Amino acid sequence: MMIDKIRAANKRLAGHKRVTPLLSSPFLDDIAGRRVFVKAECLQHTGSFKFRGAFSAISALDDETRAKGILAFSSGNHAQGVALAAKMHGVPSVVIMPADAPVIKIENTRALGAEVILYDRDREDRDEIGERLEAERGLTLVRPFDDEMVIAGQGTAGLDIAAQAAELGITNAQVLVCCGGGGLTSGIATALAADAPEMRVCPVEPFGFEDTMRSLASGSIQRNTRTSGSICDAIVTPSPGNLTFPILKDLCPRGYAVTDDQALMAVKLAFQRLKIVVEPGGAVALAAALFHGDQLTHDTVIAVASGGNIDDAMFKRAIDMNVSDL
Amino acid sequence: MMIDKIRAANKRLAGHKRVTPLLSSPFLDDIAGRRVFVKAECLQHTGSFKFRGAFSAISALDDETRAKGILAFSSGNHAQGVALAAKMHGVPSVVIMPADAPVIKIENTRALGAEVILYDRDREDRDEIGERLEAERGLTLVRPFDDEMVIAGQGTAGLDIAAQAAELGITNAQVLVCCGGGGLTSGIATALAADAPEMRVCPVEPFGFEDTMRSLASGSIQRNTRTSGSICDAIVTPSPGNLTFPILKDLCPRGYAVTDDQALMAVKLAFQRLKIVVEPGGAVALAAALFHGDQLTHDTVIAVASGGNIDDAMFKRAIDMNVSDL
Repeated sequence: MMIDKIRAANKRLAGHKRVTPLLSSPFLDDIAGRRVFVKAECLQHTGSFKFRGAFSAISALDDETRAKGILAFSSGNHAQGVALAAKMHGVPSVVIMPADAPVIKIENTRALGAEVILYDRDREDRDEIGERLEAERGLTLVRPFDDEMVIAGQGTAGLDIAAQAAELGITNAQVLVCCGGGGLTSGIATALAADAPEMRVCPVEPFGFEDTMRSLASGSIQRNTRTSGSICDAIVTPSPGNLTFPILKDLCPRGYAVTDDQALMAVKLAFQRLKIVVEPGGAVALAAALFHGDQLTHDTVIAVASGGNIDDAMFKRAIDMNVSDL
Repeated sequence: MMIDKIRAANKRLAGHKRVTPLLSSPFLDDIAGRRVFVKAECLQHTGSFKFRGAFSAISALDDETRAKGILAFSSGNHAQGVALAAKMHGVPSVVIMPADAPVIKIENTRALGAEVILYDRDREDRDEIGERLEAERGLTLVRPFDDEMVIAGQGTAGLDIAAQAAELGITNAQVLVCCGGGGLTSGIATALAADAPEMRVCPVEPFGFEDTMRSLASGSIQRNTRTSGSICDAIVTPSPGNLTFPILKDLCPRGYAVTDDQALMAVKLAFQRLKIVVEPGGAVALAAALFHGDQLTHDTVIAVASGGNIDDAMFKRAIDMNVSDL
């Protein structure tokens, strides 16, 4: 059962994950017209929830396998999560990134202890490079979402939410989760189905990349026509995963989509009212809570702020937003 | 004993204060050349530690006195802390502010439930206005720092730090605290003297306003020649308080001072590496941890980020900082 895997992951993560706070502001409640809480997962190690899944997967390996090292494909939050989780286990990690990835992301991943291997997107096949490294060095691939141990790690955020909401006397709420491949959403939905069964979990995506919303509506996996071109790049994936979608279909009544400007305005309001730094892809759930009130189903909303790895220029663009721009 | 008052305040604050997280980043450790933890008190209700002291003072009043209402003089973080703490107790609050205070601060304080009374700095005496309100309405004044119940409330941040550091296995550290009148610093120093006696607490101030540093060095209360003109306005006060200074003198070995640019650079690094929003006055302790390493005394430093109420223009100025500017 996935819930047992989440509870086991939570034991492995104890003392290593941060129990990120559940924040709120009367100013955000006023805008939303309901109570809004924000699970500030941008304050997790490496600035996103990805650390949970990476640590879960790496800690689940047997010692001999783990010692050979970890492999990941990512230029973003997953790369940093894997690098730090491997470092905490004292094992090597290799991250394969496109050569045109932002220099700061390459440097950050290296600084967290990973060996970064760059490939040319036009001339090289990253899967082939990965397979060669797996064969030659005995590395173990940690996938970004379609992996039971990764989903189990992300689900520990749901255990946090259930416990923190119960402390505030909240058992019934709509929980909005920023959704890419669905690892975080399916993990949280599984955890809350067990520990806070009155809560309803819904994925939120950027408009134009709402593959999960459409998949839930149609009952089968739908794909995005584009896989780039959103400022919410951290959560843009071609489609929900083969492992994550059946869970989402079972537990999530529907999805939501927000515009880039709504996501940016949510970044600004999180800055002003909660004093946290959220990236656009990590702000879509809060944007839905603030700006899609007419479509929400509960008086209390818990929005997961899934990551905070935003560059300087984008954050300044968010600060310059005004509600009248929406 | 002040420590008993802190423990009693902590009981009254239980379930009302946020236990703000203790954050860290390997990137900050690298810059500082030692382990650095940040107590993210900018994530406290109303965006600063001031909520703790205000709630402590208001909750300590007897019901009849409290019901008549609370009075504060402040255009800043103390005003917002008092307004929200009064609202949580269901009692009225009046905040006296200069008429030329920033509109956003006036609006925020009103939105948190306070009645704001504006006065003309040149023509009116704010103390006279306050005394009239105390007499006419029976309001109780909550002072910003020189009040035992306020110091007791701020000291609860020290109890948090002792418990959170112990969880990480840390009992011996230098604790740097952003210091205005000394309420937070003296409260934390008292709490740690009891619960983590190997820790050493030191106040940090902006250069040119280092009244507490000079007071500690000379052994008697020293005053600043100016009381405005720093971007760290939240922590600029004329001198340490009559109640706070004897505690500081007893428990704090020395003070530190940092430049405005160092404070702004710390704001930027907290944004980039910790994903929190800190105001310049709330960043001076982190600035000392990062940029005054040659004067620090311990391998592990805990810096308190005391507030996050920064305006848009100042935050953009911080984002534009570079280490080479220092």
